[in-house]
Amino acid sequence: MNRMIGTQSCIFENHPCIAAAASVVGPKEGQGPLGSSFDIVWADEKNGTPSWEKAESLLMQTAITEAIRKAGLTEKQIRWILAGDLLNQIGASHFAIRDFQIPFLGMFGACSTMSLTLMNAAMLINAGYGNYAAAAASSHFCSSEKQFRMPLNYGSQRPLYATWTVTGSGCCIVARNTGTAEPKVCITGATTGRIIDMGIKDAFNMGAAMAPAAADTILTHFHDFHRTPDDYDLIITGDLGIYGSRLMKEMLEEQGIAAGDRFTDCGILIYDPSQDTHAGGSGCGCSAVTLAAHLIPNMLQGIWNRILFVPTGALLSQLSTQQGESIPCIAHAVVLERFS
Amino acid sequence: MNRMIGTQSCIFENHPCIAAAASVVGPKEGQGPLGSSFDIVWADEKNGTPSWEKAESLLMQTAITEAIRKAGLTEKQIRWILAGDLLNQIGASHFAIRDFQIPFLGMFGACSTMSLTLMNAAMLINAGYGNYAAAAASSHFCSSEKQFRMPLNYGSQRPLYATWTVTGSGCCIVARNTGTAEPKVCITGATTGRIIDMGIKDAFNMGAAMAPAAADTILTHFHDFHRTPDDYDLIITGDLGIYGSRLMKEMLEEQGIAAGDRFTDCGILIYDPSQDTHAGGSGCGCSAVTLAAHLIPNMLQGIWNRILFVPTGALLSQLSTQQGESIPCIAHAVVLERFS
Repeated sequence: MNRMIGTQSCIFENHPCIAAAASVVGPKEGQGPLGSSFDIVWADEKNGTPSWEKAESLLMQTAITEAIRKAGLTEKQIRWILAGDLLNQIGASHFAIRDFQIPFLGMFGACSTMSLTLMNAAMLINAGYGNYAAAAASSHFCSSEKQFRMPLNYGSQRPLYATWTVTGSGCCIVARNTGTAEPKVCITGATTGRIIDMGIKDAFNMGAAMAPAAADTILTHFHDFHRTPDDYDLIITGDLGIYGSRLMKEMLEEQGIAAGDRFTDCGILIYDPSQDTHAGGSGCGCSAVTLAAHLIPNMLQGIWNRILFVPTGALLSQLSTQQGESIPCIAHAVVLERFS
Repeated sequence: MNRMIGTQSCIFENHPCIAAAASVVGPKEGQGPLGSSFDIVWADEKNGTPSWEKAESLLMQTAITEAIRKAGLTEKQIRWILAGDLLNQIGASHFAIRDFQIPFLGMFGACSTMSLTLMNAAMLINAGYGNYAAAAASSHFCSSEKQFRMPLNYGSQRPLYATWTVTGSGCCIVARNTGTAEPKVCITGATTGRIIDMGIKDAFNMGAAMAPAAADTILTHFHDFHRTPDDYDLIITGDLGIYGSRLMKEMLEEQGIAAGDRFTDCGILIYDPSQDTHAGGSGCGCSAVTLAAHLIPNMLQGIWNRILFVPTGALLSQLSTQQGESIPCIAHAVVLERFS
């Protein structure tokens, strides 16, 4: 069986599908344009937990539990959880998942994590290694700011090109396609990204750092699948934000790809400019909750039939920034298709 | 195609094989019992790099380059690198891999990382998603001590049950089995672990924290494959050390499994007690370099025909320790078999 296509891509000929998706977010996300679409919106950033890290774990734990419930499954039926987050040693995931009795594959792709876990879950289910896998990612504004930037208490000013880390977690249950007749969203292919580092060193300017990785993966994807933007109803990055998206489109246009209105970004959709989030949303949770609450439901309703979901990740650490290193970045692309 | 077996395991019926394996270590590992088996031994801990973190990245970069070279391949033939390490945001891996033009899957399993990346590489190659994948892991004594425990300059005393983080990186090239006649080491199955947390909070006492996860995965593996220890020539954990190994054997014996001399641990093999490493070696690099330099070469020579490779990971972070949390742990088991 050969499932390779092109230089960096693979095809999922059995069309593993998304049996259910769930999203849990903080209050700011609940007040944004997608607010009414999320499954659960917390009233505050901690929801009764003693720390921001514990709050992030609870976000993910709730998203996974809710996705399993919405799929009509029990914990025992899930063959794997594939998950990751931004905290050191993906701590949010470990403390979220230790209460489940489900085999765990830990992944790290920074803000590209949702496509990383979704792509790998599709690989496993498509190949018959299991019937159900949960793919999840989370981020939390407070735990991220504390770890990567400034103590929140300083009240530091943020540049206008900075993005706002989403407080939220999304989870998709990837299932073996049993060929039932109802409309479903399936994962039909993916392109794994390479690490791209163009020398950007400003940890506030993630959009600019990640744009080349997004452009590289999207160009490779079109090449590998012999497709153009016209083959997709929507091509959506994870958290490039306003300026990063613009930069990525310029890069694609330099390569002869007309990057029109069908290109957008989860970070642009999730907040309203009036929410003072500057360039948009970011973090693993940004693409995870937008996928679960907005993209998949709209596909099921027939608004879009084929989407390219391309979250990007900035693979920096607090230490690499302190040591003056530039920001290595990556993007993974997952093809979602509606079948009915 | 159904590749599931039991509750947590899968089989690789196409027998993906290890085309080559390479190891790069620091001076202390070079002076240990396996010293003459490593491909490259550094004369000092930094090898000309400006920081311990950069040194760790160079270890991994060298191990990957060397493994590709030993397999007689070029970079372009490698479909994926799957890698991880202990640093925050798996920083050693990202800065090691950004110079390769190879798609990257970032993984985090703490000291279980080598079985995590090897298992996932086998899943991908067995299913025909690619012909070659590189699976790697690294650790560095100095970058780990700095991050997880005490500044080295303090010269803190370490308890006798503490282990010594291995400075080293190992990489295996997992290849599609083309059925050639020469002896080869193949990956025929794997058991993915669950997160187990028995409440241990002492970050020096990793062996005790991880032993229950190792026992859980090994018991599940025997159950899923209908096997006993007698079906293996060697059952080898990653870095439980002297005390953790003893504890794991007691746990297995309580469950009716006679854990005899065929059970051992990479952390016990890699140092001599005279090296003042207390309970043994640890870190992602410990099992990675022991696999590459000792286990695979001895299998190729026919000393062992079937091995169960079960590295364990302690999924703590500096922050989770500071916040008084216990240590969640995990172990993944990979079946290695010699065919000729």
